[in-house]
Amino acid sequence: METDRASGYNQGMTENRLTHIDESGQAAMVDVIDKDDSDRTAVARGEIILRRETVELIRQGLMKKGDVLTVAKIAGIMGAKQTSHLIPLCHPLPNLHASVELEIKDDRPGIEITARVRSVGKTGAEMEALTAVAVAALTVYDMVKAVEKTAVIQNIRLLEKHGGMSGDVVNY
Amino acid sequence: METDRASGYNQGMTENRLTHIDESGQAAMVDVIDKDDSDRTAVARGEIILRRETVELIRQGLMKKGDVLTVAKIAGIMGAKQTSHLIPLCHPLPNLHASVELEIKDDRPGIEITARVRSVGKTGAEMEALTAVAVAALTVYDMVKAVEKTAVIQNIRLLEKHGGMSGDVVNY
Amino acid sequence: METDRASGYNQGMTENRLTHIDESGQAAMVDVIDKDDSDRTAVARGEIILRRETVELIRQGLMKKGDVLTVAKIAGIMGAKQTSHLIPLCHPLPNLHASVELEIKDDRPGIEITARVRSVGKTGAEMEALTAVAVAALTVYDMVKAVEKTAVIQNIRLLEKHGGMSGDVVNY
Amino acid sequence: METDRASGYNQGMTENRLTHIDESGQAAMVDVIDKDDSDRTAVARGEIILRRETVELIRQGLMKKGDVLTVAKIAGIMGAKQTSHLIPLCHPLPNLHASVELEIKDDRPGIEITARVRSVGKTGAEMEALTAVAVAALTVYDMVKAVEKTAVIQNIRLLEKHGGMSGDVVNY
Amino acid sequence: METDRASGYNQGMTENRLTHIDESGQAAMVDVIDKDDSDRTAVARGEIILRRETVELIRQGLMKKGDVLTVAKIAGIMGAKQTSHLIPLCHPLPNLHASVELEIKDDRPGIEITARVRSVGKTGAEMEALTAVAVAALTVYDMVKAVEKTAVIQNIRLLEKHGGMSGDVVNY
Amino acid sequence: METDRASGYNQGMTENRLTHIDESGQAAMVDVIDKDDSDRTAVARGEIILRRETVELIRQGLMKKGDVLTVAKIAGIMGAKQTSHLIPLCHPLPNLHASVELEIKDDRPGIEITARVRSVGKTGAEMEALTAVAVAALTVYDMVKAVEKTAVIQNIRLLEKHGGMSGDVVNY
Repeated sequence: METDRASGYNQGMTENRLTHIDESGQAAMVDVIDKDDSDRTAVARGEIILRRETVELIRQGLMKKGDVLTVAKIAGIMGAKQTSHLIPLCHPLPNLHASVELEIKDDRPGIEITARVRSVGKTGAEMEALTAVAVAALTVYDMVKAVEKTAVIQNIRLLEKHGGMSGDVVNY
Repeated sequence: METDRASGYNQGMTENRLTHIDESGQAAMVDVIDKDDSDRTAVARGEIILRRETVELIRQGLMKKGDVLTVAKIAGIMGAKQTSHLIPLCHPLPNLHASVELEIKDDRPGIEITARVRSVGKTGAEMEALTAVAVAALTVYDMVKAVEKTAVIQNIRLLEKHGGMSGDVVNY
Repeated sequence: METDRASGYNQGMTENRLTHIDESGQAAMVDVIDKDDSDRTAVARGEIILRRETVELIRQGLMKKGDVLTVAKIAGIMGAKQTSHLIPLCHPLPNLHASVELEIKDDRPGIEITARVRSVGKTGAEMEALTAVAVAALTVYDMVKAVEKTAVIQNIRLLEKHGGMSGDVVNY
Repeated sequence: METDRASGYNQGMTENRLTHIDESGQAAMVDVIDKDDSDRTAVARGEIILRRETVELIRQGLMKKGDVLTVAKIAGIMGAKQTSHLIPLCHPLPNLHASVELEIKDDRPGIEITARVRSVGKTGAEMEALTAVAVAALTVYDMVKAVEKTAVIQNIRLLEKHGGMSGDVVNY
Repeated sequence: METDRASGYNQGMTENRLTHIDESGQAAMVDVIDKDDSDRTAVARGEIILRRETVELIRQGLMKKGDVLTVAKIAGIMGAKQTSHLIPLCHPLPNLHASVELEIKDDRPGIEITARVRSVGKTGAEMEALTAVAVAALTVYDMVKAVEKTAVIQNIRLLEKHGGMSGDVVNY
Repeated sequence: METDRASGYNQGMTENRLTHIDESGQAAMVDVIDKDDSDRTAVARGEIILRRETVELIRQGLMKKGDVLTVAKIAGIMGAKQTSHLIPLCHPLPNLHASVELEIKDDRPGIEITARVRSVGKTGAEMEALTAVAVAALTVYDMVKAVEKTAVIQNIRLLEKHGGMSGDVVNY
């Protein structure tokens, strides 16, 4: 379902330019100060594709103390809080609630990572959700890289976005 | 070519556990203090898949002042320097040289991001290279998100790794 | 006086779980986005126990330029502003006023550190106050460690907390 | 055992001033650039005193997924890597290996936190170890504060220090 | 025009002390929590004076890909977001919009940097604007330092400030 | 004295491009990994010009507890340690010793700030020294801005640089 796709795109296209590039063609933050505070939620997802043996090692750890998944979860939450310091033109969010879930997927095989970020503010929370997924995936990579150099981080995308003027986005 | 795959994997498997999990099953950094300093290089790559119209907008910006790609490049380099603060069990690198290249790919369509990190130290530089790619990709996402909610970050992986005890890794 | 003790404890116990652990038993931030903004104050205190000779050296510095105490005070205030980047599941505070006082205590002997943090927001400010005390104490430690390896940081606790739904806490 | 106590103290006292205060009485970093790199280890310990019911809740979590202790461990390791950004006159360590262990102590009751940091460099690693303990303790505090406002962080001190010119320190 | 000069000065002087120093003469943040949120803007400017040959090299780069100016612009925007972590007694701003412009000035010769920061909050945005200018200027310095060791950063000052209780400031 | 001026400039000019811009004209870090470690020192200076009344207020504070100057000094030292996170293409320094001195100058009137940074590494320390001066000056600005909106930060430049391949630089 991509109800947002056409409208969101057209909305941007009416001005026929990327909103982060100002009239003189230079990079700039978007001025959102006049926007009202509103309740915003974003959900992002991605996955890290691993060898079956690596997944099995993580699972065994999981059955013991669950560390790989917990470390990655914590890294993702902390990464969400660093978003505006990592992404140059991204606004700081004054309020932020982030959750990150990791689930072992035997069919790919790999680990699926889903981050949900909620905020009351003037800008959406999708960059925080996407950053949480990326940092969690990198953390899994770091923890498995001694046994596997062929891990691949895949498919980091926005699943849902609610609140704000651009309306609901649902990308399933 | 994956000459590293079997050996690297086996190397880790001889201990039959993830190196970031200590003997009691808990998360831990790997002690690399006794390793010699050596010259290490890592190359990572990934891409962000975009709509053709979005690529065209970036290209037009590129022809003007190239800002989207330059902002993402700078973000990637700065992200590489933050790696050990983002990835919980990752060691700080005492010396670091990072470069990030972005190239428009019309056939996907999208932007391909390649990061090369070089260091003299006790640990490899692949996490820095992968982090640079991820942060650069997130930055592109942030700059196009007003006109496209369906961008997807794909295929972040290690291309090459040289130096250190684990020998050369080439994943093409 | 511990008027809060029973009630605060029971309040948490009605759910019979730690609020930072979600229903599936995994670590998570607490979602405070629906809470109203309110005026909140927290006061925390701790001390660093030193040898009498070390206290005397600090006091002599104090009589000259007061540096040890001033450096620790500044470190505490700056530490308060880093709280949400240090404590994984702690929310960022959108508004923050922090003050840190250090007082030489000849009877222990040592230095008593008191931090007061005020905020208007959705979450309490006790972690910021406690972090300020801890960072100030570590800074004193760092500045005396060449002459004393036996300093001990003691008794970091919440003294007062006002505002928010959980009501007043007074721990004297 | 405090073999270091007299000698370390006297060593500092021969100059009769705190090493972080320069000749004009102002705060300053200590210039260690001329020191040789050497292998250094520091072990620090502290504890957070909790109500018995709180310890029990953590233990139940531990039996499920161990999250409180794992989150605090990760926070401690990441905190160690931030030490020179938190403590104003503390040198950055070019190499760093940090481990943090948390153990439930039923007799106090509470949680004992031990951090071990190893480095090859020009300065000792005790501030990193002490910071790791403090940040881990603050993280435990944050995770239990909804059910207990009377937690107290206690007894953060250096246990052992090896390497460097000041010789071995053992504070048991 | 300096309409603010006398009044702003007198306003501070009525208390006859610097607002960042509390009644006992010690450094402290100013408590702004009771202030209402208001729309605030600050504009700061500075310049980096360069040799004519260096300006020409930058200009040639500008005609190709504009990198020096773009990198400095991005650094300035990111620096603005770090202001409260750099300036000890500066409040974090919950909302922030920063823009940075760089212009080649052939007459000095050098590059003029102008930063405009807008915020809705309890404190002014001048420190963010000034920090953006300083970090952008340092970035230009870093990028030219291989060909010129005699660059000088000059004249960083507040141009305009609007909103808040102290009224409009215009320093042209 | 500017013995470096011609030679340093020519050295860069032989390649006729800025070293931070690579062959394709894009921004890049300079690869210094093959350089030997050497002992490097850099001294930078700048000043903040203030009204006479403001200087007097600072001096009175100085006679009491010296806070404005001490806070700025600490901020400068901590800023030096953040340099590579603020300046996009600047290398992290593995070892760093920074000192910052502030001196009241009645004749301008204002405060003169001098930073000296020493390092053993592959790159010079001038950016750290310059950043320390800039952050210290911004901190003074922040602390006086309630009583003076017309402060100006002036004349941030490199005084001396020793070590490394480019030889001694002396700019007096």
